[in-house]
Amino acid sequence: MTLSYQQLYTFTHAVFTAIGCSNEHATTATKALLSADIRGIDSHGVARLSGYVRLWEAKRINANPDIRVVYETPSTAVVDGDSGLGLVIAPYAMQVAIDKAAQCGTGWVSVRNTNHFGIAGYHAMMALNHDMIGMAMTNASALVAPTFSIERMLGTNPIAVAIPANKQPPFVADFATTTAANGKLEILQRKNADTPEGWVQDAEGNTSTDANILKKAGALLPLGSDREHGSHKGYALGSIVDIFSAVLSGASYGPWAPPFPAYVPMPQNMPGKGLGHFFGAMRVDAFRPANEFKMHMDNWIQRFRSATPAPGHERVLIPGDPEREMEAIRMQEGIPLVDSVVSDLQQVAEKLAVIWPKD
Amino acid sequence: MTLSYQQLYTFTHAVFTAIGCSNEHATTATKALLSADIRGIDSHGVARLSGYVRLWEAKRINANPDIRVVYETPSTAVVDGDSGLGLVIAPYAMQVAIDKAAQCGTGWVSVRNTNHFGIAGYHAMMALNHDMIGMAMTNASALVAPTFSIERMLGTNPIAVAIPANKQPPFVADFATTTAANGKLEILQRKNADTPEGWVQDAEGNTSTDANILKKAGALLPLGSDREHGSHKGYALGSIVDIFSAVLSGASYGPWAPPFPAYVPMPQNMPGKGLGHFFGAMRVDAFRPANEFKMHMDNWIQRFRSATPAPGHERVLIPGDPEREMEAIRMQEGIPLVDSVVSDLQQVAEKLAVIWPKD
Repeated sequence: MTLSYQQLYTFTHAVFTAIGCSNEHATTATKALLSADIRGIDSHGVARLSGYVRLWEAKRINANPDIRVVYETPSTAVVDGDSGLGLVIAPYAMQVAIDKAAQCGTGWVSVRNTNHFGIAGYHAMMALNHDMIGMAMTNASALVAPTFSIERMLGTNPIAVAIPANKQPPFVADFATTTAANGKLEILQRKNADTPEGWVQDAEGNTSTDANILKKAGALLPLGSDREHGSHKGYALGSIVDIFSAVLSGASYGPWAPPFPAYVPMPQNMPGKGLGHFFGAMRVDAFRPANEFKMHMDNWIQRFRSATPAPGHERVLIPGDPEREMEAIRMQEGIPLVDSVVSDLQQVAEKLAVIWPKD
Repeated sequence: MTLSYQQLYTFTHAVFTAIGCSNEHATTATKALLSADIRGIDSHGVARLSGYVRLWEAKRINANPDIRVVYETPSTAVVDGDSGLGLVIAPYAMQVAIDKAAQCGTGWVSVRNTNHFGIAGYHAMMALNHDMIGMAMTNASALVAPTFSIERMLGTNPIAVAIPANKQPPFVADFATTTAANGKLEILQRKNADTPEGWVQDAEGNTSTDANILKKAGALLPLGSDREHGSHKGYALGSIVDIFSAVLSGASYGPWAPPFPAYVPMPQNMPGKGLGHFFGAMRVDAFRPANEFKMHMDNWIQRFRSATPAPGHERVLIPGDPEREMEAIRMQEGIPLVDSVVSDLQQVAEKLAVIWPKD
């Protein structure tokens, strides 16, 4: 079925309200979550709403958190999310980074005691209206084996960077530090299809094309896939995200990151509190006049967009192009939901006595 | 032949002095350049010394630059390198970042009007002794085609991140944002060997295994190699490095980055001055007490080092392990130089009337 953004907004807001979020928090969480559906990253939007509800039922998510800055310097802060929704904590922390940048050029905020925050790009993009470059990253449940290993040590640990332009739309990169994000495996599972070589390995470290291999003790591979193709670089990137998000803040890092599925037991001997995020904001006029910077970004974007395409390709894309184009379509035509997500959401509706929208 | 670090140091310092560098600048440049040879990144050390000399002969490098901060806020600065050696400008700019971090938690410095700076890791590591996380990146001559393109638009644009620990050696990641660095192609060229699939493409965008393909209008591929394996992520990373280094500072970006080989003409209509770099320093105690952070980094490193290895592999590496182990060996046993580098350096010695060391 297909729902309009407004229908999905009303439903999702009602769900967050039903688990006890304030109106303000429910609004913040709904906007952050649905930014994924609108931008075409279906794995990170309402498809995960029932997962958040189950974490709340398991008392791993606090619907009324006391989110606060626990330490700060002029350009940095540590935020404790009090086990709340990452969807609420992340915009709070990003705003702290933006406020710091307004004062002293840049702001950098590491967050502990938080949960999954939806798509990284949404939070990074908060900086754009302030003529700032925004950055967002998070650690996540361990599904990724380092180069030369068979043990799942890192999450898909995404990085997002949003950079403002003038007349051109902004540059918005948002990507997992693995060859393929977990959401891509989920799509193949639904289709009963194999993965390409280089996405996953089995429990013994052999290459595999089984889209269900994570349920058989397999692992996702770092960006680069294998050593010969630079997987040590993807492993390093995922590690940097883990350290900035969780070691700097006092969250749980590496294989101790709390799992998203509520049925998976929490790791033993966790070295910190909850998941971790990391946010950055840099005022572009802390480097050169903002209009000058944005004019050159227009030039950068136009030059790259006009790069000679390879045969069989019409054009070269700028990071953020596909998601922005999808947003324009879905705000018009609505958001298609696959059957499994619809029945999942209908169960949530029933459980929490929330009205499910008519088609 | 094999030379000791001290022999190579004396020679290199004499070369930089002979082209007109002050004693202080020659010392700074020599240490930065040789850090590559010592750490086993042979493509970026003395193998490039003749290239720097040719850039000086072509008047593209100024041996007596007036390097200065041209704009600043409490946590940021822009440095103009006055066309000097990147090997001298980069340590200057990294020190500005460190000084800013000491004052307000973090420091971020974008640099214009500079040249190649050797290995990024050397500059990032300057932060370690201050209990800071260091970051360094640079744009470079365009050799890399974006995903879906056949045009060379980006350099290999490396990123380095150095993170201090306590008893464990530091975490030091330093990598090109391509599947394989250009230096790896040079090694294969000397051996007359092919590249693995996924490193390069030919002028029409077909996959190629020709290690000489860059001389035939081919291109290096972004980390990920192709769209299915995440090359759009490597393309985004290389773009972010380009924008932070060159658009923020006012250097020349993308395909306009000045080429390293002095015989390649400068691009037309350059939008800025010279190459660009970007440096960052974050005081770890701007987030949590330094000893606490470093204790957790020890724990992080030990846990990852003890991750279960894949069959056929003895151990899992931490970023920085191979280079540190190489440094220990080469400080003892000396630095091996291949014949082509030796004859290249002997020509430099003759041209500048500098004494070439005896074996």
